[in-house]
Amino acid sequence: MDGNFVVYKRRNNYYETDQMGIIHHSNYIRFFEEARLYMMKEFGLDYAGLEEMGIIIPVMSVDCKYIKPLHYDEQIDIYTKITKFDGIKMDVEYEIYRDGELCTTGKSGHCFLDKQLKPFRMKKIYPDLYEKLNSIL
Amino acid sequence: MDGNFVVYKRRNNYYETDQMGIIHHSNYIRFFEEARLYMMKEFGLDYAGLEEMGIIIPVMSVDCKYIKPLHYDEQIDIYTKITKFDGIKMDVEYEIYRDGELCTTGKSGHCFLDKQLKPFRMKKIYPDLYEKLNSIL
Amino acid sequence: MDGNFVVYKRRNNYYETDQMGIIHHSNYIRFFEEARLYMMKEFGLDYAGLEEMGIIIPVMSVDCKYIKPLHYDEQIDIYTKITKFDGIKMDVEYEIYRDGELCTTGKSGHCFLDKQLKPFRMKKIYPDLYEKLNSIL
Amino acid sequence: MDGNFVVYKRRNNYYETDQMGIIHHSNYIRFFEEARLYMMKEFGLDYAGLEEMGIIIPVMSVDCKYIKPLHYDEQIDIYTKITKFDGIKMDVEYEIYRDGELCTTGKSGHCFLDKQLKPFRMKKIYPDLYEKLNSIL
Repeated sequence: MDGNFVVYKRRNNYYETDQMGIIHHSNYIRFFEEARLYMMKEFGLDYAGLEEMGIIIPVMSVDCKYIKPLHYDEQIDIYTKITKFDGIKMDVEYEIYRDGELCTTGKSGHCFLDKQLKPFRMKKIYPDLYEKLNSIL
Repeated sequence: MDGNFVVYKRRNNYYETDQMGIIHHSNYIRFFEEARLYMMKEFGLDYAGLEEMGIIIPVMSVDCKYIKPLHYDEQIDIYTKITKFDGIKMDVEYEIYRDGELCTTGKSGHCFLDKQLKPFRMKKIYPDLYEKLNSIL
Repeated sequence: MDGNFVVYKRRNNYYETDQMGIIHHSNYIRFFEEARLYMMKEFGLDYAGLEEMGIIIPVMSVDCKYIKPLHYDEQIDIYTKITKFDGIKMDVEYEIYRDGELCTTGKSGHCFLDKQLKPFRMKKIYPDLYEKLNSIL
Repeated sequence: MDGNFVVYKRRNNYYETDQMGIIHHSNYIRFFEEARLYMMKEFGLDYAGLEEMGIIIPVMSVDCKYIKPLHYDEQIDIYTKITKFDGIKMDVEYEIYRDGELCTTGKSGHCFLDKQLKPFRMKKIYPDLYEKLNSIL
């Protein structure tokens, strides 16, 4: 992965397995969220703080390609990167590696809403946040 | 189960299994919640409506005995009953049956809080709700 | 949705919400699985039975577009359809409706593996299953 | 907590919250599992390895007291200890602390089964494992 990415490390939990003996595919969407919020914090954007400011960043789309199955107790590295930001929407991409082997790729699309679930002009209302996100790209 | 119980029926999902090939034990706590909220609705107490009124009913304790393991796609019957209510706290008991065989027993303890997460005098502030819950017992 | 679809009905659980007050986006992937396995059963293909025969159908890709948020206790209808099947791979599409309003669309891609997690010639080894899946399309 | 305990640290995830704005109570049972498997690994007992040997350790009972609610992104310390072991059954206790404040207590009861889900004489069949678990107590 090129560009301004962050690597988030986690270990797969037993309760995340299913009776196929692998990590259930729905959990990868949760791993992406862990990685995304960790990345934002690394970039100085604390999501708990954003919610207190009245900003929420819901997920508008998600997709995931399962290349190699993951298993209980494996350590994984999730490479995470903002690939698009225009003040209204944000795209994030993910690559999951286990021991250097690419196991999963994914994307998520987001928008920025205020507490009334309305879009807002970030560039005008939160220029600092806008600059920060723009600079990460 | 004696007294004023309600039977909630559900089918176990694939994503609720783990690599032991059985339903992961943490999910039973979720099944109890499904059964409890269904029971309350059957008694005319809609939890979504209670939350809108500003009443929340957090869980203070939970316990569960796993007698026989449950599996994917099994239909289960959860017998559910309020065993204590005094206007401040409520206890609920559960028995999970599969084809008439008792597989699980459980209990949960609850309190009633307002939106500021403070206890309140239900008998005084919501006498109708108090009477309804009292009458179920 | 046109063609040979099945409608799966479910009600959203409290434990599926998050602190945004909506159903957490990862759970939709689980709803798709519920709908897919229900559809297969409606078509006479019981997944528990397939696993006993030694056939597993892992998820190779998933994607989801979140159009309108879903909430606790809402009843949803998931329209589900096989859109591709060639004996080796299968694609499934989903549309989630609430009171007739389209809230979510999604897709999942699958392959057919034996217990050793190897692909197999379904047309040759399980001709009846092949014919059944082919006829659904 | 006295005795031979292990402290497991974790941070609460966004997807573990519910619409009350707190960590959903069912997730604590999962946190206990994380802590328990971490403790066993710290004591030289790798659960993935035990399963490969043909030993599974299902949960027979669980209970949890919720003293203070936990929230998204909080760092918690789970003190974890084996309180009973007799070769057939094992009890584990948990205390969750946030910034030194006790927020949750819990217990779980376990048994040791072989792959056919039958109890076995650990002292005879796996004397090393028996000694190790006995010595931890």
